[in-house]
Amino acid sequence: MLEVSEARSRILEAMKPTGSELVSLPEAAGRVLSQSVRANVTNPPTDVSSMDGYAVRAEDACAGRLLAVIGEAPAGHPSYLSVDPGTSIRIFTGSVMPAGAEAVVIQENTERRGANIFLTENVQAGAFIRRAGQDFAAGDILVAAGKRLSSRDIGLAAAGNAPWVSVYRRPRVAILSTGDELVMPGEALPPGGILGSAGLMLQALLRSAGADVVLLPVARDDEAAIRRLVSGLDAIDLLVTIGGASVGDYDLVQSALKAAGLRTEFWKIAMRPGKPLMFGHLGRVPMVGLPGNPVAAYVCALRFLLPAIRVLSGCADVLDEPVMALVTETLPANDRREDHLRATLGRSESGQLTVTPYGRQDSAMMATLAGADALILRAPYAAELEAGEFCPVFVLPEGKSR
Amino acid sequence: MLEVSEARSRILEAMKPTGSELVSLPEAAGRVLSQSVRANVTNPPTDVSSMDGYAVRAEDACAGRLLAVIGEAPAGHPSYLSVDPGTSIRIFTGSVMPAGAEAVVIQENTERRGANIFLTENVQAGAFIRRAGQDFAAGDILVAAGKRLSSRDIGLAAAGNAPWVSVYRRPRVAILSTGDELVMPGEALPPGGILGSAGLMLQALLRSAGADVVLLPVARDDEAAIRRLVSGLDAIDLLVTIGGASVGDYDLVQSALKAAGLRTEFWKIAMRPGKPLMFGHLGRVPMVGLPGNPVAAYVCALRFLLPAIRVLSGCADVLDEPVMALVTETLPANDRREDHLRATLGRSESGQLTVTPYGRQDSAMMATLAGADALILRAPYAAELEAGEFCPVFVLPEGKSR
Repeated sequence: MLEVSEARSRILEAMKPTGSELVSLPEAAGRVLSQSVRANVTNPPTDVSSMDGYAVRAEDACAGRLLAVIGEAPAGHPSYLSVDPGTSIRIFTGSVMPAGAEAVVIQENTERRGANIFLTENVQAGAFIRRAGQDFAAGDILVAAGKRLSSRDIGLAAAGNAPWVSVYRRPRVAILSTGDELVMPGEALPPGGILGSAGLMLQALLRSAGADVVLLPVARDDEAAIRRLVSGLDAIDLLVTIGGASVGDYDLVQSALKAAGLRTEFWKIAMRPGKPLMFGHLGRVPMVGLPGNPVAAYVCALRFLLPAIRVLSGCADVLDEPVMALVTETLPANDRREDHLRATLGRSESGQLTVTPYGRQDSAMMATLAGADALILRAPYAAELEAGEFCPVFVLPEGKSR
Repeated sequence: MLEVSEARSRILEAMKPTGSELVSLPEAAGRVLSQSVRANVTNPPTDVSSMDGYAVRAEDACAGRLLAVIGEAPAGHPSYLSVDPGTSIRIFTGSVMPAGAEAVVIQENTERRGANIFLTENVQAGAFIRRAGQDFAAGDILVAAGKRLSSRDIGLAAAGNAPWVSVYRRPRVAILSTGDELVMPGEALPPGGILGSAGLMLQALLRSAGADVVLLPVARDDEAAIRRLVSGLDAIDLLVTIGGASVGDYDLVQSALKAAGLRTEFWKIAMRPGKPLMFGHLGRVPMVGLPGNPVAAYVCALRFLLPAIRVLSGCADVLDEPVMALVTETLPANDRREDHLRATLGRSESGQLTVTPYGRQDSAMMATLAGADALILRAPYAAELEAGEFCPVFVLPEGKSR
């Protein structure tokens, strides 16, 4: 049995980022940059006012001055007049500072007297001026390659005048569920049949992680059927199978695909749930074989598939980091398998993050998986942990109900 | 100036969830349920084995017994034979427990001897049996109305045999940016012009929150142009304007839309950044007027628009809760405006969440908004907070680079 970290390293080593494509800025949200976005402009491009008021010279910026208003410069309409001694120009938030002006007197600190303004307060030189380049300069890297673009990154790229960006192509992942017992929702349920849930669950999970997902038809427990379904899949970046990864008489994926050229790298991991995890290559396509149990399949997807998708997507930041939370119940000592306890998050009276494991951790219980906010991580051979101590937890993606 | 919480309550009161639509399970990921999903089946539907092994009677589950193997029941292929005393049936993970069987002897605790098995360990009655209904029973609510469906909820609904679900229609939001100075990325930049960034940023943010977004063409500072662009918008659920919400001579949104029937409810909030936030109704359509400054627009969107989208989306859980983090620098006392400091998150040596504000908080600086992981929340009149104390922070959505 391989350690989780060793297994993950070997899987991630086999992944290579996809190629690039050019997308418009609105299409780029949630995509991963393959080239850094650089600023094509300086922001602000010139000194601008940060308030509505009057542009004045420094020596005129004193209470008691009466200044002639010689012009007006709305945002987007710079004035070509100079502010000479004894004069001012009406300006607005975002207006270009006129030549000669060294401060902005805000509207509230003036009284309008016909064609003049009377200053009621002293104003420091430089007041209410945003300097050219205060935000960024042309040529600066705004968003680095390898970053998944947030809405704020989209705004920053727009401010830097970058209408097109290069992103990694979405990884294409095929999912194959196997098992004579599986039916899809809405299909007739024969005696001994169960609903196939892991395929649809992982389709949604991997899509939310940025993958294009091909959900293959369910394969019966028949080697030829399995081989038929994976033939012609060479345009994919990753093949994921669900079920049939163990060594039971009816766990056929390995034997079926061996005849199609599967090279198995490993197939047992020291983790719970999820021991029978398989990794190999089918031709040039990396393949991860997940356990058929849907909870185990999800936990394995979280620990192995999401990082793999991130490498394929070109993400600079691949691994999830656990956060520390106060456990509300004593956790027993762990054995040699890294364990993942479904749990809910809360807050202590002082605002600390707390975590409470579900009482039953049977890996066939989907309801507790759906209800969980987090997985408590128990290292191999972790000692008993008393209630009130900190333990590492993985906060689940899509965790909040809103 | 209204308090943030009062302003938000008044905005949210005006929002009503959209109507329902029926979608297939794969389309439902990320959507909000308008009707609870109930289980159409019991899971497991019958008692099943949780391991590969042999189904035996309780009185035969002792080390040293030799039992005849009378049949085999792969998953999906129940055996119609009964396990009588002295006999066993070969079963697999997920197999239906045969009649008469009261325990599963796992494969590792048996030796195969021709047509018999020899038991090497004692086994408790009930061992390795998953009981019918252990996960859920037909009729149980699996996912409650008002929940945004995670991939795990999709898996649970699939396990419950629910191929179709009722979800709220995506809210339709129109965004109108105003200002003579604005150009879109890639357009020629005249003197005094700046790039319009807030519209594209909010389009991405509101889409990621589940809205359908109509980005209207940029309106010049001209009342007729503004009115023209918002005419014919009656199929939308929310109108968002950016810029022109203040009282400067060129802030025209209110005056332009008053002639089109705008009823303003309020337009000044005690917050920073973002004082000139406007709320009203244009006919039956609620309208939020955001400040033109893109950082202020984003912070207002986070505090007011995202909760509004959640109410429109039918979410049961509407408000973001701040989390507590250790501030690494002393924060000065605050004035009467609720403040939002852009900040980055880290970890202390003991694994505690830490937060560090950017040194410059000028609300025109997009680079620090894009780089931020969180906003430090400073309540009105909050006292100075020393480095090393806990402060509330909003973790930003789409915050992690992966």
